[in-house]
Amino acid sequence: MRSVSVAGIGSTAFGRLPNMPIEALAVEAAATGLEDARIDQREIGALYLGNFISGPLTGQEVLAGIVGDNLGLPNVPCTKVEGACASGGIAFRHAVLAIATGQCDAALVVGVEKMTHATTPDVTAALNCAMDNRADGVSGLTFPGLFGIAWRVHTQRYGTNREQVSAVVMKNKRNGLKNPLAQMGANLTAEQIAASALICDPLQLYDCCPASDGAAALVLVASDRLDRKDRVDVAATVQTRGAARIAGHPDLCSFDATVQAARRAYEQSGLSPKDIDFVELHDCFSIAEVIDSEDLGIAPRGKGAVYAAEGRTAVGGEIPINPSGGLLAKGHPVGATGVGQLYEATLQLRGKHPNQVQGAAIGLTHNLGGTGVACTVNILKRSDA
Amino acid sequence: MRSVSVAGIGSTAFGRLPNMPIEALAVEAAATGLEDARIDQREIGALYLGNFISGPLTGQEVLAGIVGDNLGLPNVPCTKVEGACASGGIAFRHAVLAIATGQCDAALVVGVEKMTHATTPDVTAALNCAMDNRADGVSGLTFPGLFGIAWRVHTQRYGTNREQVSAVVMKNKRNGLKNPLAQMGANLTAEQIAASALICDPLQLYDCCPASDGAAALVLVASDRLDRKDRVDVAATVQTRGAARIAGHPDLCSFDATVQAARRAYEQSGLSPKDIDFVELHDCFSIAEVIDSEDLGIAPRGKGAVYAAEGRTAVGGEIPINPSGGLLAKGHPVGATGVGQLYEATLQLRGKHPNQVQGAAIGLTHNLGGTGVACTVNILKRSDA
Repeated sequence: MRSVSVAGIGSTAFGRLPNMPIEALAVEAAATGLEDARIDQREIGALYLGNFISGPLTGQEVLAGIVGDNLGLPNVPCTKVEGACASGGIAFRHAVLAIATGQCDAALVVGVEKMTHATTPDVTAALNCAMDNRADGVSGLTFPGLFGIAWRVHTQRYGTNREQVSAVVMKNKRNGLKNPLAQMGANLTAEQIAASALICDPLQLYDCCPASDGAAALVLVASDRLDRKDRVDVAATVQTRGAARIAGHPDLCSFDATVQAARRAYEQSGLSPKDIDFVELHDCFSIAEVIDSEDLGIAPRGKGAVYAAEGRTAVGGEIPINPSGGLLAKGHPVGATGVGQLYEATLQLRGKHPNQVQGAAIGLTHNLGGTGVACTVNILKRSDA
Repeated sequence: MRSVSVAGIGSTAFGRLPNMPIEALAVEAAATGLEDARIDQREIGALYLGNFISGPLTGQEVLAGIVGDNLGLPNVPCTKVEGACASGGIAFRHAVLAIATGQCDAALVVGVEKMTHATTPDVTAALNCAMDNRADGVSGLTFPGLFGIAWRVHTQRYGTNREQVSAVVMKNKRNGLKNPLAQMGANLTAEQIAASALICDPLQLYDCCPASDGAAALVLVASDRLDRKDRVDVAATVQTRGAARIAGHPDLCSFDATVQAARRAYEQSGLSPKDIDFVELHDCFSIAEVIDSEDLGIAPRGKGAVYAAEGRTAVGGEIPINPSGGLLAKGHPVGATGVGQLYEATLQLRGKHPNQVQGAAIGLTHNLGGTGVACTVNILKRSDA
C-alpha cells in the first residue's frame, strides 16, 4: 500500500453556530482544507463524509453528495459513512485506503454535525440512536447513564475518586481555553466541579461534553506528491467493532473495540505507546478519558485518573492527552469529532498548535462509537521523525 | 486489482414485515447469504451495510456494528454507508473494493430498510432527506413531484404518453407476480392503471413504488477462492455523483450521474449496452424506468417508453428490464434496493430465477439516489460467458 499524507486541514469553530446550515459548515471546513493543501479541487478523487444524526436532527441526508456538489468537486464517488461517534474516524480511514490502494491520488475527508438548534429531548433521543435500542433502549439508559455506571465500577475496582476524575476535567477545560476553536474552555477548580449539578450519579455537569455544531476536514494525498521533508504521514489507521449491547461487554471499565484498535495500530505502525508524543482521545465524559487512556496503553490499568491527577497527561507532562481540550472543552459535534482530532493532531505535528506539545512528532487519535460498537485509532507521524 | 465473485446471496421478502425489527431483517438476509456461500462467518473480513433512513424512522443507527455483532462476525470493520436510494449499491462497491485491493478475501454486503410501520407523513418527510432540503425543500416538492415534472418534460419533448408508460407498469407488475419476494405483483390492464388515483399529475397510483420493509445480502469473495467454472464475477462497479439540487440538472429527462456511471461501467468491463442480457434498474416511478433505460444506453433517447410498449424490455424481449418486478412491484426498502437488485441478478446468472431470462450471462444493475445526487452501476458476469 502507498504511503498517505495530510496535505491540508480546515475546521470551523465548535460550538453554537446558529447561522450556519449543516452543509455550509461542511463546505467551509472543506474549502479551508483545500486552500491549505494548495490543491485544485479537480484533483480530488474521492470524498468521504462522516456524519451521525443529520437525518433525525436536520432532516438532511446524502450530505456527501451535497457537499461535493456545493464545493464543485468533479464527478467522483462521494460517500457518507456512519458509525455513531466514530463516524469521523471511519471517514478518514476510507479516504486513506482510497489513496493507499491506488484508487486515487488525493481525497477529501469531512466530518460534520449540527445539534444545538434541537431541543434537549430531541438531541438525547438522536444520540440514543447509537445504542442497540432493541436490547438496551428498554432499560431507559442514556449515554450519561452508561458512563455513570462505568465510573462506579472503576471506583469499586480501582478506588478512583471524584478528585482524581476532576483532574481530567480541569486539564481539558484549561487546554480548551488555549484553543480558539473550543466551545467550552474554562479555568475550573476542583470545588467548582464538585459543586456542579448532578447529571447522572456520579457524573456531574463538567464531566459531560456539550452538544455542538461544527465541521472539520482533511485533504489527503499520496505521500510521493509532497516534496517537503516535514510531511505529516499516516502511520496507522484502524477500525474495529465491539459489542453492540451493553450486556455484551464483559467489563464496563474497558472497551474491547479500543483495545483491539490500539493493538493493531501499534502493530501497523511498528510503534508502541511509549513512542507516542500526544493523544487526542474520545473524552465524551471525564471517565471515558480515564478508561480510554488505559485501553490505549497510555496509562496502566486502573491508573487513568491517577495519571491525570499527577499531571502526567498535561501539556508538558509525560504524555499529553487532549491538548485541544478534547470533547469536554472543545465540544462534540458528533460526526466532526474524529476528523477534528486529526485536524488538531496535524497542527501539533506541524508545530503550530495554539497549545503546542513541544517536539511533537507522533500523535495518536482515538474515536469511539456508541456503547463501544465501533472504534478507530489513527496514528500520524512527521516524516522527518 | 483482484477479481471478485459473488459466493452467496440472501434476502427477506420485500413488503410489510411488522414482526421483524430492522436489525433482524438484516441478520436474516445475511445469515441466508452466508449459508448459501458455504462460508464460515469467521472468514468475513469486512461488512458494509447500506441504509438510508433508519435514524428518522426507527431511531436506530450504527446498524453495521449491530448486525456484525448479532451475526457473531469476528472483530472486523463494520461500516454503514449512505447515499439515499443508492445506499445499497454503494455498500456493494465498497465490499468489492475491500477484496479487489487485497484488504480481505471475503466481505459481507447488507442492505436494509424498515418503513411500513411509520405514518405516511413521516415516511414522506424521511424520504425528503434525500433532497437538498435547503435548496429544494422550500419548493414543497416531494419525489413524486419531481418525477411528475420529469414525465411532463418527457412528454413535451418526445411525445411520451400515458399508454406507453403504462406498458412499463404492466410489465413490472406482471414480472413481480412471478417473484416470491415481491410485495405488489399484479396483473393490471391499461384501463386499471389509467383509472387509478392521481398522485401527482401525471403520476398515478400504479406509477409509484410502495414503501417497504426488507433486507438483502451478498457474500463476496476473491474469485480465486471459488473453483467452480460458473462463477458470478463482478465485471464493473462504479459510483458517481450528480447535481444535488434540482435546478442543477440541465435536463430533467436525464440524470448525469447515471450517464457517467454507465459509461464508466461499460469502460471498466469492456462491454457495451448490446452485450447486456438483462437489467435491474431504479424504477422508483414508471417514468424513472423510461429515463434510466435511456441514460443507460439500453433504449435510444426518448424511446424508453416506446421500447416498453413494443415489448422489447419484457422477459423474452431484446433486453429484459426488471424481471424481478423492479421497485414498482418488488418494492423499495430504500437501503436494501441496490443489494436486492444484485441478489436478483445473481439468481439470473445462476439460471435459477423464478422469472428466468434464458441464457442470461451478463446483467447490469442501476441504483439512483436522491434527485440524481448519487448513482451506482454494477455489472455481473458469468465467468464461463
